[in-house]
Amino acid sequence: MDPMTTVGIVQLMNDTFQTKQDNVVVEYPLSIIVNKEKYVTLVASPIYLDELAIGYIYSEGLIKSKQDISLIKIDNGIVEFELNIDIKTLPKNKDRIITSGCGKSIIYTDLDGSDLEKNKLETKIPREYIFNMVNILYQRSELFRETGGVHNALLMAFDGGLSIFREDIGRHNAIDKIIGYMVLNEISPEKTALVTSGRVSAEILVKVARRGIPLLVSRSAPTDLAVKLADELGITLIGFVRGKKFNIYSYAERIT
Amino acid sequence: MDPMTTVGIVQLMNDTFQTKQDNVVVEYPLSIIVNKEKYVTLVASPIYLDELAIGYIYSEGLIKSKQDISLIKIDNGIVEFELNIDIKTLPKNKDRIITSGCGKSIIYTDLDGSDLEKNKLETKIPREYIFNMVNILYQRSELFRETGGVHNALLMAFDGGLSIFREDIGRHNAIDKIIGYMVLNEISPEKTALVTSGRVSAEILVKVARRGIPLLVSRSAPTDLAVKLADELGITLIGFVRGKKFNIYSYAERIT
Repeated sequence: MDPMTTVGIVQLMNDTFQTKQDNVVVEYPLSIIVNKEKYVTLVASPIYLDELAIGYIYSEGLIKSKQDISLIKIDNGIVEFELNIDIKTLPKNKDRIITSGCGKSIIYTDLDGSDLEKNKLETKIPREYIFNMVNILYQRSELFRETGGVHNALLMAFDGGLSIFREDIGRHNAIDKIIGYMVLNEISPEKTALVTSGRVSAEILVKVARRGIPLLVSRSAPTDLAVKLADELGITLIGFVRGKKFNIYSYAERIT
Repeated sequence: MDPMTTVGIVQLMNDTFQTKQDNVVVEYPLSIIVNKEKYVTLVASPIYLDELAIGYIYSEGLIKSKQDISLIKIDNGIVEFELNIDIKTLPKNKDRIITSGCGKSIIYTDLDGSDLEKNKLETKIPREYIFNMVNILYQRSELFRETGGVHNALLMAFDGGLSIFREDIGRHNAIDKIIGYMVLNEISPEKTALVTSGRVSAEILVKVARRGIPLLVSRSAPTDLAVKLADELGITLIGFVRGKKFNIYSYAERIT
């Protein structure tokens, strides 16, 4: 399905109204069913939906690898998973499943990151690499240029051997698509970096940390909680990459 | 509580690293309890939390006016409501929908707005009014200028008699704060407009339509579903207000 469609608009330009056609981004509801139980509905751009669903359940802590998935079926806005694990036995998600639709502890669980190990990366990364990633992100942002309605995410390996770009109306979704790609293709995260067009909240930070990615770069702002979690989880967090300037919020010693 | 705090950073500027202090926005979890049952946890900027909580439960369809609230208590990140109605009796879709918003927005209402009446506004609004609103929004965006980490919303009456500005890390929250203000102060929505710094998804459109606001303005992009709902619900939707240009997606005949 096309992530973009055309609508008729009236445009004010040079003090004159004119009717024309314009591109807008498509908002698509995707329901996720896990072991025959409805888990959640996401609203997303309708591309790479398999990656989105897999990345989402990975970020939620339901799976650790693609081997935990015995079946995935995608049809008409519904993704059905059969997992090799009983999700009710995962202590972390017990409440959430029981109260699906009621919302107990949804956010707290995601913000916590207390089950994660600290990232111990010792590789040094040159500053030019940061600017290069952000440039590539923007060069590839076609849907954004057409609609202004999406966020982007890019995964790059330090050695240049990998460059995965995804777009979505939700900044969380764009990152979950990258994570879904990594899970599906069993990409090792040790020497990779993720760059996002969006702001970095605690949830985004934990998503990236959970997948083991040591370097998170944003053109935009982080929150206080994201900075605190980056400190605790060993993630180098960089924000406000603009022109020849950026801010490093944690583990600055990795950037040379 | 201050919505902004200071962190130590390493800044790359003019090809030199230097340590300094920088402002970041605070991410604050707010739990909402309704009639002694946990309803949801929002992540928000810790200002105007009463308005946020009231606007949120209004947008969810739990209350129709402040008379439905018999008690509200806010303490240490927890808002407790006692409502004069049994929320279990509300014919609501209890599906958990995660929207594309900034603060991982979770809603339990449906996105379709099918319970809402079409807005029948016949007032004409001059184009200058649109530009003026967007200018005021940006003049008042102090926290954004300091941190880059928030969205803004502004409610204005056509006659200039009202101008309410709110900021939050979540674009949904900023609008819910405005709606909470309207509910608390029993502001009539008939001749008001709302302007947002954020993109307009279906959820945002339905929030504004539910409160009866006939004109929604964004500096940014709408989604296809937001445009469709604006058409159905009688809302004039304007996007991409930049310089002396904007796009009208629905009910353009109201703008002169």
